[in-house]
Amino acid sequence: MTYCVALRLNRGLVFAADTRTNAGVDNIAQFRKIHYWCNPGERVLVLLAAGNLSLTQSVVSLLNEQLVEREEDPDSINLYNVPTMYRAARLVGDAVRSIRAIDGAALEATKTGFAGSFILGGQIGSEPPRLFQIYSEGNFIEATDDTPYFQIGEHKYGKPILDRVAQPTMRLGQAAKLILLSFDSTLRSNLSVGMPIDILLYERDSLEVRREKRIHQDDEYFKKLSQAWSEALREAFTKIEEFNV
Amino acid sequence: MTYCVALRLNRGLVFAADTRTNAGVDNIAQFRKIHYWCNPGERVLVLLAAGNLSLTQSVVSLLNEQLVEREEDPDSINLYNVPTMYRAARLVGDAVRSIRAIDGAALEATKTGFAGSFILGGQIGSEPPRLFQIYSEGNFIEATDDTPYFQIGEHKYGKPILDRVAQPTMRLGQAAKLILLSFDSTLRSNLSVGMPIDILLYERDSLEVRREKRIHQDDEYFKKLSQAWSEALREAFTKIEEFNV
Repeated sequence: MTYCVALRLNRGLVFAADTRTNAGVDNIAQFRKIHYWCNPGERVLVLLAAGNLSLTQSVVSLLNEQLVEREEDPDSINLYNVPTMYRAARLVGDAVRSIRAIDGAALEATKTGFAGSFILGGQIGSEPPRLFQIYSEGNFIEATDDTPYFQIGEHKYGKPILDRVAQPTMRLGQAAKLILLSFDSTLRSNLSVGMPIDILLYERDSLEVRREKRIHQDDEYFKKLSQAWSEALREAFTKIEEFNV
Repeated sequence: MTYCVALRLNRGLVFAADTRTNAGVDNIAQFRKIHYWCNPGERVLVLLAAGNLSLTQSVVSLLNEQLVEREEDPDSINLYNVPTMYRAARLVGDAVRSIRAIDGAALEATKTGFAGSFILGGQIGSEPPRLFQIYSEGNFIEATDDTPYFQIGEHKYGKPILDRVAQPTMRLGQAAKLILLSFDSTLRSNLSVGMPIDILLYERDSLEVRREKRIHQDDEYFKKLSQAWSEALREAFTKIEEFNV
């Protein structure tokens, strides 16, 4: 399994992904699930991926091959020349459909299935930052102020805190704190989600990646956060009046 | 879907279940999912049920028919004469297997499947209170101090708070508060879990049911609890240092 989450804020975007993949509980490995493409001053695109690793890696490979192809054919469409984030999301969706055409039938014929989903966010030129969730069918939806975040993979344990706290008006550092709390709940409850966590904070109109970090098990901030949150929850619990019937 | 949870404490047992059933999002109904059998002064058995309603209702019907049969055949085994909670759990498991023998093949042949799980708790005579989770295969596990609670149905949203706070040393009223918070998180995130909530607090060695309540949407305590918890979470969130990279 996997847990990825991204928030769309007025001040930018925050992305995070765990790094654990597993084929059964006795076969786990570490893979980066956050990918980005940056043409400084012009565009930043960040992709989070969950699902069959063969599918998600193939999608990234296809997107990268398109970038190489453009040297031969300058008219070909790729992540570095699409004019909007909407077009970029379509490009990712098309890549998913291309892989489905190759691997879909074989996977669907087994218990494995063809499963994958993606979160794509970023900013191109003067367009405001946008955030999309792309399904394994290649179609996609966009985040709005009503629902400023997307989650893919093991989303349930980490959702209650997001639902209660996420706001488009948050600062990036606040949103990163929220996302890490959402990860903390998920990591406690699901073994198939594992550290380290990759986190990337994109500041609106910066058009470059300045703030990213890999958070390891022994990260001081994460340990403090996790402990403070547990204590705060227990304290808050104590303060509430007991049920009496 | 359904959400049921039960906690085994040193001072007794607390059970709760929502009341929503659904066959698709456009076909929801209200059914009680908490059932109990009580021979005051001698035994109390409480059963929570999740899964195909046809299965869970049939199991309860079978268990009740066994009680009628005993009038004709005093040697027949039933919930009112099994000597221990372990034997009671076996009786429930046997009932699940009986229904599987009747309906299993037809259900497994469709997307519906044969799905159901149960939580059985209670006390018989001088035996301490015990708590079991019974699977759709009829086998079961028992709660211990390491894991003093069981959840069935839509368990993920409400698990983080249980994992952090549940302790066998809690008072029944504290445990009920915890369970209602776990419900609050679940109700916010999953439409297929719906109020009212049935809650039952069993006091160790009381050997009768003294404290039970149906908590409706407009219940004052539940509204206060939900609001106080949201505020406490937001406040706790604010207090923790922001992420900075």
